[in-house]
Amino acid sequence: MTSIELYEKIKEKKSFLCVGLDSEFNKIPEFLKMGSNPVFEFNKRIIDATARYAVAYKPNLAFYEAYGVSGWVNLRMTIDYLRTNYPEMFLIADAKRGDIGNTSTMYAKAFFDTINFDAITVAPYMGEDSIKPFIGYKDKWAIILALTSNSGSETFQYTEDRYSGMVLFEKVINQSKKWGTTDNIMYVVGATKPEVIKDVRRIAPDHFLLVPGIGAQGGSLYETAKAGLNAQCGLLVNASRSIIFADNSENFSEIAAQKALEIQQEMENLLSEKGIM
Amino acid sequence: MTSIELYEKIKEKKSFLCVGLDSEFNKIPEFLKMGSNPVFEFNKRIIDATARYAVAYKPNLAFYEAYGVSGWVNLRMTIDYLRTNYPEMFLIADAKRGDIGNTSTMYAKAFFDTINFDAITVAPYMGEDSIKPFIGYKDKWAIILALTSNSGSETFQYTEDRYSGMVLFEKVINQSKKWGTTDNIMYVVGATKPEVIKDVRRIAPDHFLLVPGIGAQGGSLYETAKAGLNAQCGLLVNASRSIIFADNSENFSEIAAQKALEIQQEMENLLSEKGIM
Repeated sequence: MTSIELYEKIKEKKSFLCVGLDSEFNKIPEFLKMGSNPVFEFNKRIIDATARYAVAYKPNLAFYEAYGVSGWVNLRMTIDYLRTNYPEMFLIADAKRGDIGNTSTMYAKAFFDTINFDAITVAPYMGEDSIKPFIGYKDKWAIILALTSNSGSETFQYTEDRYSGMVLFEKVINQSKKWGTTDNIMYVVGATKPEVIKDVRRIAPDHFLLVPGIGAQGGSLYETAKAGLNAQCGLLVNASRSIIFADNSENFSEIAAQKALEIQQEMENLLSEKGIM
Repeated sequence: MTSIELYEKIKEKKSFLCVGLDSEFNKIPEFLKMGSNPVFEFNKRIIDATARYAVAYKPNLAFYEAYGVSGWVNLRMTIDYLRTNYPEMFLIADAKRGDIGNTSTMYAKAFFDTINFDAITVAPYMGEDSIKPFIGYKDKWAIILALTSNSGSETFQYTEDRYSGMVLFEKVINQSKKWGTTDNIMYVVGATKPEVIKDVRRIAPDHFLLVPGIGAQGGSLYETAKAGLNAQCGLLVNASRSIIFADNSENFSEIAAQKALEIQQEMENLLSEKGIM
């Protein structure tokens, strides 16, 4: 998918919502746990309930890997279900991978060939050859961690480079944007620091940003949009727990739909104010 | 496993060799590809051939994930085989994981509970809460990326912190060593830069270092040992491709054993010169 195609979908859906499938087995409703692939059953119902309001889904790999082989079966079934029933969706493997070139090539194969994701989140610590293999795929994306939404983002991401004066996450964006284009690189910037999204927009005015941290982590959608929307939207805002685990009764999917609708409606207003629709 | 227990094994085996199981399906001998779990069959023979000369094995997750569910089956079978037949081995998941706290907790579950590894390699970019969940397990280890062996290590790892004067990989060690002990934290330092191992030893004199990069990547075992050995060895040196893919005929495992033996013999000499045995 190109950035223009993603933008078209955003306009069509009046939404830049990404639903995070952090589908921890222990948190899914009890009545689903009896079946043979409960995490897939859970995802399927969440997807059917929220697809009207979302443009992207983002399974978080940790929550599948934690269950080994059966976790990967559930992940595979989820992506196949999305591709078959909602082919318009942008699918992100939230995997935070990154290794030496020949190894990153195998991770790219895992998430672009073996499983048909559109994008993968990658950690920049190992530098250029660790990220390039993800960029080499036609219509696929590397979503590079810049400033993350967690408390630990303070530990290293603000390290101020003595020579350039940039802090590390700015340097990451500034260097890595030369490796690809606005059609194959996005950046992760946490909604928990909306003031920083403005700084990021100075370095990367045209790139899509994947913004986690609204909902359970406390970030503001309004502040994020004010700082981050560009002429082609340029944002995918993720919510995970606040949608998928909003309720754990038999009505969980209706409640999830309601939560997703609320976010979509706020997004529609924000897009409209920005003159995008 | 504690650092003392690891040290005892190193003395017993006269080796600090870690064999990297970067077992790419396309590179394994043709005659093995007919069976039902060829990658496991390959690993099994490599392990049986090299176990006398090694203290650790390190499957590289990318080479398993690239084959999805079947890759995870092969990984699981490999670890079960090692645990059953070679219970003395130190088993490292070379996974380069790291995410926000609640997600890293799930990765720790994946590699310490669901699959019984002793250690996992982790990327430090996301900071303290992304690493702490791995340290919280009794007798398990986080092996934190400091200076990696690839060309891309230059991109960000040498960023000089304006305030501390340290470069990023030094800062990573200096900060993260406070989060745990020499019994649950190791560092990755590439053999391709042995001069830097001396600098690392100034900041972390007592930590074990996992050193990739000898063999196919060109690093020197002699230089690495000279710079990195401490009173309790303090090194695990990894070789992957130069052992496991030294040959792809029906004799591949004998050739792999020969390559591992050569490294073990050099290690025995180095340990002996250092007065460790």
